Amino acid sequence: MTKINKNYLDLKENYLFYDVACKVKKYSAENPDKNIIRLGIGDVTLPLAPAVISALHSAVDDMSRAETFKGYGAEQGYGFLKDAIVSYYADRNIAIKADEVFISDGAKSDIGNILDIFGKDNVVLVPDPVYPVYVDTNIMDGRKIKYISANTENNFLPLPDENTEADIIYICTPNNPTGAVYNKDQLKVWVDFANSKNAVILFDAAYEAFVSDPSLPRSIFEIEGARTCAIEFCSFSKTAGFTGTRCAYTIVPEELSFDGTKLNGMWLRRQTTKFNGVSYIVQTGAAAVFTKDGMKQIKENINYYRENAKTITDTLDRLGIWYCGGVNSPYIWFKCPDNMGSWEFFDKLLSEANVVGTPGEGFGENGKGFFRLTSFSSHENTVEAMRRFEKLFKKD
Amino acid sequence: MTKINKNYLDLKENYLFYDVACKVKKYSAENPDKNIIRLGIGDVTLPLAPAVISALHSAVDDMSRAETFKGYGAEQGYGFLKDAIVSYYADRNIAIKADEVFISDGAKSDIGNILDIFGKDNVVLVPDPVYPVYVDTNIMDGRKIKYISANTENNFLPLPDENTEADIIYICTPNNPTGAVYNKDQLKVWVDFANSKNAVILFDAAYEAFVSDPSLPRSIFEIEGARTCAIEFCSFSKTAGFTGTRCAYTIVPEELSFDGTKLNGMWLRRQTTKFNGVSYIVQTGAAAVFTKDGMKQIKENINYYRENAKTITDTLDRLGIWYCGGVNSPYIWFKCPDNMGSWEFFDKLLSEANVVGTPGEGFGENGKGFFRLTSFSSHENTVEAMRRFEKLFKKD
Repeated sequence: MTKINKNYLDLKENYLFYDVACKVKKYSAENPDKNIIRLGIGDVTLPLAPAVISALHSAVDDMSRAETFKGYGAEQGYGFLKDAIVSYYADRNIAIKADEVFISDGAKSDIGNILDIFGKDNVVLVPDPVYPVYVDTNIMDGRKIKYISANTENNFLPLPDENTEADIIYICTPNNPTGAVYNKDQLKVWVDFANSKNAVILFDAAYEAFVSDPSLPRSIFEIEGARTCAIEFCSFSKTAGFTGTRCAYTIVPEELSFDGTKLNGMWLRRQTTKFNGVSYIVQTGAAAVFTKDGMKQIKENINYYRENAKTITDTLDRLGIWYCGGVNSPYIWFKCPDNMGSWEFFDKLLSEANVVGTPGEGFGENGKGFFRLTSFSSHENTVEAMRRFEKLFKKD
Repeated sequence: MTKINKNYLDLKENYLFYDVACKVKKYSAENPDKNIIRLGIGDVTLPLAPAVISALHSAVDDMSRAETFKGYGAEQGYGFLKDAIVSYYADRNIAIKADEVFISDGAKSDIGNILDIFGKDNVVLVPDPVYPVYVDTNIMDGRKIKYISANTENNFLPLPDENTEADIIYICTPNNPTGAVYNKDQLKVWVDFANSKNAVILFDAAYEAFVSDPSLPRSIFEIEGARTCAIEFCSFSKTAGFTGTRCAYTIVPEELSFDGTKLNGMWLRRQTTKFNGVSYIVQTGAAAVFTKDGMKQIKENINYYRENAKTITDTLDRLGIWYCGGVNSPYIWFKCPDNMGSWEFFDKLLSEANVVGTPGEGFGENGKGFFRLTSFSSHENTVEAMRRFEKLFKKD
């Protein structure tokens, strides 16, 4: 008789964004006349950059002719894209090699799938609040999960101390959901901690392109010692609006090994066995992001979202609401006004302002009483949403 | 200290096609003047169908305008593509529901990732010879693997008997690597066996479009009782030349459950947690396969490959070499002439005819002394390869 993976029974019933979507769907069905503005899920709204569009068309044309048609590519990605990523890092004085770069369809896929190469008997350390995928993927494998508290006292940027226990450490900076960003000294504490414990850091850099302060790190590999303890996940989703186009990359340094086994080789084996590479068309589009035109165009898009973030933080400033994020991050994380609970606030914001956000509680215990808004909507919608927000919570 | 997944240490050093690629690369470097013809890896060569190209361009255009731009889609795929697949099955009188269809980037990904939802304590039954991915993905999880012998006596179509032990059963028909195709009565034996043992069949239908004999099954769901024991994996790779474009689908019937847990819900949870859907562009291209023009065009391409298969089997017939496959399958599996070993024959064919194939031994013990050729090259290359082949092995 077939045995299921019983760890799945330990998962909470539903996925956060699914719950949100159901509530919005219900409200929308009952109130068809309302203009609902969505600042919940972190999905972009600006179209792809012209340089990317042009490259995509050109790649489609390649697929229409036998001479330029592409069948299977290497599972780990085309050299042209890996080389472009190596240059992107080199421009920031970070030396990585093409063989350390693995192209995939999404950071979420890689962050989940990377666990294949680790044993079940590792202690996993995640911050609370946390992107639910880090937790759920480890519950599916039955790993022991420990939480490190992120809160207003540490500005949602927790650091380890002598009692911290961890074999696998998740760090996301700029953080989802809080928007908080570690500085280099703080990340050095984590890198030194990981090296001293022989632990691995799974570093989620999906939001690196939103860092505008040049003193803040955008890659774990800016930190000395990271190459012996860290894997970095990055994505075109937020950098270049690829949420529906799907491309990402993962960097596994050659030096990284445990028990005499190189993780780079393990991940290569995992990917060549359970993956068949990203569409040639999509990889060609992704490579165009790193051209001169592409970089200029995606920066314009990111600046557009940054202005939205400022619209949100300006409103919160005027209302005297505590928040973090929003400056070097597309996410704004704030304390719900009037000591409301996260879902209570969600319901009020949806029903009275017709604005959708994400309840902080969905990201963990420490998210209770907090709320996340994103800057990925249009200017018009963001301005209108915050006008309604301010009207609702302005003290007379 | 981080513990690696030690099951990886039980994997054989290298992946079959990687070994082949290394040998070819070495020979090619040492003999730069030789015209090497590759009939090894099952990769298509004809460009995408015009209907697909046109849909891809149109989808790229959608991504260039804010009004038609697509961000995150549902992880399990767009309704328009799932509905098209439901119709594709309905045209063959197979009733499936859209919620039973999950779109992905590749059958290889799904066949590997599906194991996430099963316990480690299942006995896995695979035929020998076998597509290496079935074996390697289970070694990675530490599952016990049993082999059922496929050989010339059973025409490489083994059936279970009262002593067969299995919780998870892999069936691929038309088979990779042997090209052998089960008939309905034979598949019924497997379905009845699985239901009687409460086992699950992982049914790889990647080559279904190559079946030309209307009496042969192209889906496990043509067999009564399959909905309570089978998951079907299918792909656009061979059907529509998507090996470099990347799209596939997996069908998990609602009825399928073990220990009171529905696998459809588990797979939905797995995919929503560890996957973010296939590119909107690619899904749009895939949907065009099912249009009237698309179906006509891909059938022309498949017929082109069928003619190649006939060129190969005609040669083998003339030489009196035992083979199977090649009629309802893109693969031709034959006994190496002169009782040569698989790798011995590989080396001879590469060095003396400059033709690359795949050694049967790479697919398992029972593949020793056998060899696989594919029909996915051009007519010209296939004819030339078989001319050299015949010259080399013709008995005077």
